[in-house]
Amino acid sequence: MFHDQPTPFLSVDKAVMTANIARMAKFAAARGVSLRPHAKTHKSWDIARLQVQHGAVGLTVATVSEAEAFARGGFSDLLIAYPLWIDEAKAARIVALLSTTTKLAIGVDSTVSATRLGEYLSTAEHADRLRVLVEVDSGHHRSGVTPERAGDVALAAQRAGLVVDGIFTFPGHGYGLSESRERAAQDEVRALAIARDSLLTSGVNCRVVSGGSTPTAALVNPQFSGADPVINELRPGVYVFNDAQQWEIGSCQPAEIALSVVATVVSMRDNRVVVDAGSKVLGADRAAWSTGHGRLLDYPEARIVALSEHHATIEFGGVPAGSEQPLEYGDRLRLVPNHVCNAVNLVDHYFVSSSAPDAPHLEEQWQVHARGANT
Amino acid sequence: MFHDQPTPFLSVDKAVMTANIARMAKFAAARGVSLRPHAKTHKSWDIARLQVQHGAVGLTVATVSEAEAFARGGFSDLLIAYPLWIDEAKAARIVALLSTTTKLAIGVDSTVSATRLGEYLSTAEHADRLRVLVEVDSGHHRSGVTPERAGDVALAAQRAGLVVDGIFTFPGHGYGLSESRERAAQDEVRALAIARDSLLTSGVNCRVVSGGSTPTAALVNPQFSGADPVINELRPGVYVFNDAQQWEIGSCQPAEIALSVVATVVSMRDNRVVVDAGSKVLGADRAAWSTGHGRLLDYPEARIVALSEHHATIEFGGVPAGSEQPLEYGDRLRLVPNHVCNAVNLVDHYFVSSSAPDAPHLEEQWQVHARGANT
Repeated sequence: MFHDQPTPFLSVDKAVMTANIARMAKFAAARGVSLRPHAKTHKSWDIARLQVQHGAVGLTVATVSEAEAFARGGFSDLLIAYPLWIDEAKAARIVALLSTTTKLAIGVDSTVSATRLGEYLSTAEHADRLRVLVEVDSGHHRSGVTPERAGDVALAAQRAGLVVDGIFTFPGHGYGLSESRERAAQDEVRALAIARDSLLTSGVNCRVVSGGSTPTAALVNPQFSGADPVINELRPGVYVFNDAQQWEIGSCQPAEIALSVVATVVSMRDNRVVVDAGSKVLGADRAAWSTGHGRLLDYPEARIVALSEHHATIEFGGVPAGSEQPLEYGDRLRLVPNHVCNAVNLVDHYFVSSSAPDAPHLEEQWQVHARGANT
Repeated sequence: MFHDQPTPFLSVDKAVMTANIARMAKFAAARGVSLRPHAKTHKSWDIARLQVQHGAVGLTVATVSEAEAFARGGFSDLLIAYPLWIDEAKAARIVALLSTTTKLAIGVDSTVSATRLGEYLSTAEHADRLRVLVEVDSGHHRSGVTPERAGDVALAAQRAGLVVDGIFTFPGHGYGLSESRERAAQDEVRALAIARDSLLTSGVNCRVVSGGSTPTAALVNPQFSGADPVINELRPGVYVFNDAQQWEIGSCQPAEIALSVVATVVSMRDNRVVVDAGSKVLGADRAAWSTGHGRLLDYPEARIVALSEHHATIEFGGVPAGSEQPLEYGDRLRLVPNHVCNAVNLVDHYFVSSSAPDAPHLEEQWQVHARGANT
C-alpha cells in the first residue's frame, strides 16, 4: 500500500480501525452506557464521524483549541475533559464555541478555578448551554479533586452561577503491567461512587458519571451488572488505533492494531537494522515497563532497542536478521509506536488503506485536523 | 513577555540564543574548523541565517525534506548527514535540490547503498555538484560503517561514479553523565582518524572530516592543538537553544538555555502543581539518566515528576510549593524540555523576545519552517 509514498508515514488500516470502533460502540450500547470517545488520539474529523456513526454521543477533547478544531468540523457536543484555568481570552474563545455547539462541558477540579470560571462565564445566556463537570482523582494523582471533596467544588461552581452536570475521572494508573488495569478499574468505580455521593449530599445534580480509559473500559464491565451501575459514560481514546503500550499491557491483540509507521531499512550491521523512522514520527514515549521504544507489527519478537530523531535501531529476537526471511536494504517495515496519540500529533496526514477483501484498492489521505492544538 | 499568548507556547530568548550562536562560532573560528550547524534542532530560516551571519559554512540536515525546506529558504550549501536509501522518487528530489543548491552532500554507510546511489545519481552532470560523505560509527552503534571499512564504502561510491569528499560521524554516546562526554570525544577523533586513513589507503580523497555534537564539540578542543588536527568540521545542533539534557550532562549552564515552554498552573494539591504543558509540546524524551521529564528555568530544584499529553506534574524540591514564593493558580512557569529538537518539531511558531537591555520590547513570531519534515 502506498508504495510510492516516501517513508516514514502513518499507515491506517481502515478495516481494523472500523472494527475497533464498532467493538467499543457495541460494548457500550450493550451496557446502556454513553460513549464519548477522546478525540485527542486521532484529531481527525473523518474518524470522529465514524465514531458518531457508530453511536458516540459526542466527543471528548483535551484543550480549547481541540474543541475549536472539532467545532469547525461540525461536531456540536463536546466535553473539554481538562481543568481549565480561565482568563479573558480563553473565556472569549469559550463563548465563541458556545455559539457553534449545542452542548459544551468543561472540567474544574478546585473551588478556586470553579469560582474563577463563574466570574467569566456565569451569565444566564451562557449557563444555558455551558455545563461543568468536576474532575475527580481516582488514583492517578495528576489533576482532579479527591472524591470526598468533589461536592465542595461542585457547590462552588453552582454558587458561582454555573450549571454542574456531573463528574469525570481518568484512571491513568491503569497503564501498567499485570494487576494495574484491574486495580485501576476498581479504583475508578469506587472514586466515582464516592464523588457522586459527595455531589448529591451537597445538593448538586450528578447526571453524568464519566470514566474509562482504553485499558480499563472493558474491565469496569462487571461493575455494570451490579445493582448500582456507577459509570454511565465512557471516554476511551486509544482503542481506535491501539499501540505498543496497549499490546504490552494486554488490552489489545496485534490484529487489533490499526496504525503503524511505515519505515525503510537504511542501515544494517550484525544482528541489527536501522530504519528511517525516529522519535520525530513515532514519538519518544517509553514507560518504565515498556520492553523497548516500539514494536514491529509483522515481527512480534523484534524490539526497537534505540531511538533517535530519525533512526530506529531494531533487534530481531529469535529471528536474527539475515536468517529465514532475510531483510534487505530498502525493505519497508511496519513499526508500532508505543503511544499512538503522540505519533499522530507529529504528522499532517494519515495514509488510509484497508485489509478488508471488499476494499482492496482503498488509498486515501486523511487530515489530522487538530494537530498541534495545545492551547 | 507575550502575556496575551495562550499557553503552552515556545518562548525563545533572542539575546541568549545569539550569544550561544556567537560562542560556538568563535570557538570554531579560533581553531580554524568549519562550523556546519545541524538545523534539525531549530528548523528555522531565521535562526539558520543568524548562524550563517556568524560564519557557518553551510547547514547540516537530517532528511531530504529538511534539505528541501532550507533550499526554499535560500540556503545553498547543505549536508544531509544521513545514510539515505535512494529510490526513483528520492533521486528525482535530489536532482531538483541540485538545481537550487551550489553544494549538496549526502551520507552513505555501506557498499550496497553507495552502489545504489551511483546507479541513480552518477551522471557527470550531477557528479559535478553532488558530494558523498561516508558515515562512520565512532561508538554510538547506530548507523555508520566501522572506521576500518570506511575506505571500502568510499571506493564503492567512487567506482559507482560518485565524488567522495570525506567522512562524518555522530558521537551520540556522548549523551550521558560523568565521563561519557570525554570518552565519546576521544572515540570520535580516534574513529575519524582511522576512517580517514582507510580512505587515503584506498586512494580516495578525504577533504572533509566532520564530527561534533553539542556535548562533545568543546571537548575535542585538545585534539586541535596536536600535530594532526583530525576534525576540520563541526556539526553541533542543540547548542543554539540548549535543553534540560545539556544542563544535566553539564554541557551548558542554565543561563545559556534560550528556549522554554511557557505553561500555566491549572491544578494544585499538597506539594505538587500541574501545568498545561505535556508531552505534546515538551516531547516525551527521557533518557535513563535524566532526573525527570524536564526542568524549570526559574526553579533549579524543581522536577517534572510525571508527564501526560497535556499535564506536567511538578514537585518543588527544597522549596515546597506554598512556602517562600507561593505559587497560585494561573501563574506562568518556564519549563525546559529534556530534548529541545523534539519540542520544536511539535509547534508551528516560536515566540521570540529578548532579555537584552537594548531590546526590551522585542516580540516576534518566527516560523518553524521544517516542522514535520521527516521524509
